[in-house]
Amino acid sequence: MQLEMRMKPLFDELKTRTVDGIQGLYLAIVQDSGSAEVLMTAFMNRRALELTLETGIMHYYSTSRRRLWKKGESSGNIQEVVEAYVDCDGDALLFRVKQKGGACHKGYRSCFYRRLEKNGLKITGEKIFNPEEVYK
Amino acid sequence: MQLEMRMKPLFDELKTRTVDGIQGLYLAIVQDSGSAEVLMTAFMNRRALELTLETGIMHYYSTSRRRLWKKGESSGNIQEVVEAYVDCDGDALLFRVKQKGGACHKGYRSCFYRRLEKNGLKITGEKIFNPEEVYK
Repeated sequence: MQLEMRMKPLFDELKTRTVDGIQGLYLAIVQDSGSAEVLMTAFMNRRALELTLETGIMHYYSTSRRRLWKKGESSGNIQEVVEAYVDCDGDALLFRVKQKGGACHKGYRSCFYRRLEKNGLKITGEKIFNPEEVYK
Repeated sequence: MQLEMRMKPLFDELKTRTVDGIQGLYLAIVQDSGSAEVLMTAFMNRRALELTLETGIMHYYSTSRRRLWKKGESSGNIQEVVEAYVDCDGDALLFRVKQKGGACHKGYRSCFYRRLEKNGLKITGEKIFNPEEVYK
């Protein structure tokens, strides 16, 4: 069966949101398939979602750069899809992935590397790469 | 120290988004503090975040009903905050919570109860309450 036909039941279930003036976006939450750590969140447009499902590698739509974005295109820190889930409202997807290196452009495994404590934010994540060496 | 003063370093770090025409929103991802299951995602405005931190109980801003929303106000299925994390961009928060009952208004523990398979969506979550009995 063509991918387009296979994906029809999915797209029939999905509803998009408009974020910062950009129409047609779905929210993606990304979780490590092994440790269950939440690694990051980002938005996808229809093309990013199609490419993700076609290739098995996470693609997003960057709302700051306003363009399609293959995660790891600069850093090599790609994310391989293991499982994908859709939420009850159909506007959010949960991807369980195998993360190469770190998900965060600041050098951490997860983008959620700061915990909220009584007097502010405390870094609790472990830095696993040097962003200055990876993003040249 | 006043809560307002304690929260200043947090709000200095945060950036809001405009979603479906509603300004001033942060994205919240909610994870079970025990099982690490991702339970749901929703938006918060500043007041919802303040109330969540003041009370230790999750509050959101409903983009469909356009009002502040205490999770569990109808169902009793409240979420107690265990830990909170902020992402690198400061526009998303991750809450690890103790979930009473189920997070999903359809009766499932997690809103991500449908897995994407080759031919469509398959229900993989366990239904733990009857929404018709809970939301009257």
